[in-house]
Amino acid sequence: MTDRKILLSEKDIPQKWYNIAPDLKTPLAPPLHPATHKPLGPEDLAPLFPMALIAQEMCPDPFIEIPDEILDVLKLWRPTPLVRALSLEKALKTKARIYYKNESVSPAGSHKPNTSVAQVYYNKQEGVKRIATETGAGQWGSALAFACSLFGLECQVYMVRVSYDQKPYRKMLMQTWGGKVAASPSTLTKYGRAVLEKDPGNPGSLGLAISEAVEDAVGRDDTKYSLGSVLNHVLLHQTIIGLEAIEQLKSIGEKNPDVVIGCVGGGSNFAGLAFPFLKDKLKGKTNPKVIAVEPMSCPTLTKGLYEYDFGDMAGMTPLVKMYTLGHDFMPPSIHAGGLRYHGMAPLVSNLAKDKVIEPRAYHQIECFASAVLFARTEGIIPAPESSHAIHCAIDEAKKAKDGEVIIFNLSGHGHFDMASYDKYFSGQLEDYEYPMELIKAALKTVPKV
Amino acid sequence: MTDRKILLSEKDIPQKWYNIAPDLKTPLAPPLHPATHKPLGPEDLAPLFPMALIAQEMCPDPFIEIPDEILDVLKLWRPTPLVRALSLEKALKTKARIYYKNESVSPAGSHKPNTSVAQVYYNKQEGVKRIATETGAGQWGSALAFACSLFGLECQVYMVRVSYDQKPYRKMLMQTWGGKVAASPSTLTKYGRAVLEKDPGNPGSLGLAISEAVEDAVGRDDTKYSLGSVLNHVLLHQTIIGLEAIEQLKSIGEKNPDVVIGCVGGGSNFAGLAFPFLKDKLKGKTNPKVIAVEPMSCPTLTKGLYEYDFGDMAGMTPLVKMYTLGHDFMPPSIHAGGLRYHGMAPLVSNLAKDKVIEPRAYHQIECFASAVLFARTEGIIPAPESSHAIHCAIDEAKKAKDGEVIIFNLSGHGHFDMASYDKYFSGQLEDYEYPMELIKAALKTVPKV
Repeated sequence: MTDRKILLSEKDIPQKWYNIAPDLKTPLAPPLHPATHKPLGPEDLAPLFPMALIAQEMCPDPFIEIPDEILDVLKLWRPTPLVRALSLEKALKTKARIYYKNESVSPAGSHKPNTSVAQVYYNKQEGVKRIATETGAGQWGSALAFACSLFGLECQVYMVRVSYDQKPYRKMLMQTWGGKVAASPSTLTKYGRAVLEKDPGNPGSLGLAISEAVEDAVGRDDTKYSLGSVLNHVLLHQTIIGLEAIEQLKSIGEKNPDVVIGCVGGGSNFAGLAFPFLKDKLKGKTNPKVIAVEPMSCPTLTKGLYEYDFGDMAGMTPLVKMYTLGHDFMPPSIHAGGLRYHGMAPLVSNLAKDKVIEPRAYHQIECFASAVLFARTEGIIPAPESSHAIHCAIDEAKKAKDGEVIIFNLSGHGHFDMASYDKYFSGQLEDYEYPMELIKAALKTVPKV
Repeated sequence: MTDRKILLSEKDIPQKWYNIAPDLKTPLAPPLHPATHKPLGPEDLAPLFPMALIAQEMCPDPFIEIPDEILDVLKLWRPTPLVRALSLEKALKTKARIYYKNESVSPAGSHKPNTSVAQVYYNKQEGVKRIATETGAGQWGSALAFACSLFGLECQVYMVRVSYDQKPYRKMLMQTWGGKVAASPSTLTKYGRAVLEKDPGNPGSLGLAISEAVEDAVGRDDTKYSLGSVLNHVLLHQTIIGLEAIEQLKSIGEKNPDVVIGCVGGGSNFAGLAFPFLKDKLKGKTNPKVIAVEPMSCPTLTKGLYEYDFGDMAGMTPLVKMYTLGHDFMPPSIHAGGLRYHGMAPLVSNLAKDKVIEPRAYHQIECFASAVLFARTEGIIPAPESSHAIHCAIDEAKKAKDGEVIIFNLSGHGHFDMASYDKYFSGQLEDYEYPMELIKAALKTVPKV
């Protein structure tokens, strides 16, 4: 009988992260100082991040050793299972073999702890006592609170208000791990207070919450800032996903995948699975189709511009070259909360620009339908974000040739998103395609560099 | 470095369940017909259960083969990891080695699918189209809805009203797997309507919901009833937990455990872990301390009577010999919802009566404190039920001798119980010891047999 789960033992966990930067076709455009528009030096990032992470952000080496202390904590749930989706395949009557990497098994329920554990470790090494961050749907905030609790650091989370109100359980999760959670815009920061003064009912956005967390970190000596996606070092930490997957496929004698799929918000779970598979593609040794899936309501890769833009709403972060909908973009309150960021990781953007990866956008209702099919066959209730990857995998499986191998990242479970499923079943969800006029208007805020 | 997780491969999953009945010191007292008080025959149970399960209920053999179709579905998440609680040990500075069996990794988040999958399979084999059941906190209802969705059966769940109102996410979970959920007491049954007429605000109880589900099943040709705990065949299906654990301990050369711990409501997760370890204890080959942990607010084993009583409130089920607080017992609305049943599995009761196992009761606030320590060290947020086992393990670890081995069952996660954690942190939880006068009053309803 074919095994459903392909497991690795703890001793076979990857010992190094894969840094895709040196392997890119086009070198990565340097981040620029928000005021001077000159390339950033490490010292410009020092108020925000510990030096070890800044070094990783700019590292020219293709592999970076993972410290034992990080591996030891990752082993609480890693290596994660690679699962052959036998029951889904049967339901689809597909000729493809479908695999998914199950990142939902982490204590926080998503891939996010892969980087939160690493980030908290390096902060602790450099004497940091407190970390400030933002969170959208709460996946990242939970992951950081979890990691802080293990290493004994304080954690302050600015949570986008619409999610704070819609997802109280995720807030309680962060609190159980000892994190402090404020709805953003909050009264804790100057920027938050200014927004609230103009617009007391502001629902918040990831860009806005980032501004608050950055202000918090810059204003206190004991505090640094932490980001859950977008940056090079964050994507780096996630590559353990794809590195494990490659070993797992090898261990059962499976061929290189024909299709590799991940959903994208900031880009980290997609990068985590896809980058290790892109290593050989960039060298011309393999040629998998690698698909980054985003929601129609926040179509960064499919409708944005590839330009220098701010990572946050207030324009406090460095300028990075990326696909963007403009840092003023205010996404609609759809429920796939983690995929609502105006920008896209520079590394993922670079690969999309060079057509190494293929962007694709789906509507949320079709994604929920696929998520329900997945739940009723494979058992796991997926996060709404991950449902975009599932829907794409099903789409590809339906037209697959005999023996095609599809792999996707199940980035998280939906246990804290059941209200979205309730809305889906009661017909309260709507599909929403962000209108081109509004995108054009938002893009006017992209600075001239 | 010591591995945190001890894994088995799918081919090493146990092929047989362990039936403790023939190994008991005192033979199990036979169940009696609710009207005649005569021992039951298989035909008396036929309106409720398929014949295969009735045969298991009365089986004299110590091992029963697990059909391949059941094993194939169990492999969606089994074998489950046995985890060495290294971080908890460090926090406690204990001399003991603590292990926990992580049953929270199932799609429904608890041990319950071990039996729901088996039960749905046997029902389907005998042509049943629809299954009715009750659920307290929703763990069992979710597990049955999950299993029904995989095998294509309809699922009707009667959910104790207090949980239905407090745990909307668990209700949505069942619905995502296609289950139908009614708050009990409901208007769907005669018994429910009668209760509501007298007391429209009745918060429900497990005994009451059982009455409704039994009435539903008996009244329809296409429907059978399913129970998530208490019965012999349910406990049987759970023994896969302990059988795996024994193999896992062997695989790392660990000695037989000195202490085996599980929380008890109806008794199934406790039995699942403990019974395989009791096999050798009953033969005098080993002598572990085996502790069944219950809440002070529902002290069935520690303060109940060992008598024949009904399994439900209406007196429709067979009479079984067990520890009971009386079938009229109305537990207070504490939050460890799964541990609120008035009775206890006859097999567990028999072992407690014969002092093979040791019952113990704890208050809920101390259990929550231990759950938070566990979350902040091992990462996983435990179900409030499982927190009783954790608290007991910590209690034992604190007084352990050097090299003592403690194993407990982490029966489920608390992702759908975050509101209870919120109440714990905000000081809204109260400890409650069910008063002896009320227990004595409730026990007057135990029929004279």
